[in-house]
Amino acid sequence: MRYITGGIALGAALVLGTLATTAQATAAPAQPSRSGGLYAQSELVLTVGHGDSRATSTIERAATLSCRPTATGSHPAPRAACAQLRAASGDFGKVTGVVSNRVCTKEWNPIVVTADGVWEGRRVSYTYTFANSCAMNDGKGLVFEF
Amino acid sequence: MRYITGGIALGAALVLGTLATTAQATAAPAQPSRSGGLYAQSELVLTVGHGDSRATSTIERAATLSCRPTATGSHPAPRAACAQLRAASGDFGKVTGVVSNRVCTKEWNPIVVTADGVWEGRRVSYTYTFANSCAMNDGKGLVFEF
Repeated sequence: MRYITGGIALGAALVLGTLATTAQATAAPAQPSRSGGLYAQSELVLTVGHGDSRATSTIERAATLSCRPTATGSHPAPRAACAQLRAASGDFGKVTGVVSNRVCTKEWNPIVVTADGVWEGRRVSYTYTFANSCAMNDGKGLVFEF
Repeated sequence: MRYITGGIALGAALVLGTLATTAQATAAPAQPSRSGGLYAQSELVLTVGHGDSRATSTIERAATLSCRPTATGSHPAPRAACAQLRAASGDFGKVTGVVSNRVCTKEWNPIVVTADGVWEGRRVSYTYTFANSCAMNDGKGLVFEF
């Protein structure tokens, strides 16, 4: 620093100060969002597709579902879907695992349902394969009814 | 069948007929939905979290984004986000890959952004890790601005 004259030192100090301020401001953890805040978020995208796995299935329908602060989304019945998920404590296995008394054929014409996103702040990635659409009728619940 | 009398045979035929009809009706491929239909769907859930991978990051914010038939979702600016994705032909790498002239510190305080769901009928699962929030400022684009 001993080679720097007053003017240059002042300029350099200003630049460094600006950089330091910028870095501090921009490298700080991101702020809680307008849509985040006080409650744990539940934001999901749901799909129904033909095929026997998530990777190979052809998506037929998809819908978004937000459960906080109000139930909304492109899902046709977000309130009912959110209520069912809350009753299942966000466990999609409880939705798709409903045991049916329905009489179904045993044909293998599989349908894959998926759920991705966040349930009450925790990452969700769920996949379930139904043998055919008859088998899906009970397990789709209200959540995959779209 | 030779042991079955007329009345039982009629009853059995009715039951079998009903079962066959039920099976045929319920095992048929699912119908196009109200929200599906004529256009390829674009339904997404986006997240921003702290950490260096999708699996280990802590989700800080999440938002849904639907781009058809109208831009909507819990995303604060769905129209702008959908427009940017359309301009990028749904390639999230074009959004996060914007090269910045910004001066950032080199600290490793990673932020992971994810996108899951469907873009124009095709399954999407995208993950990108920014070194810190400064590095994220350009790459978040309008899509991850929530």
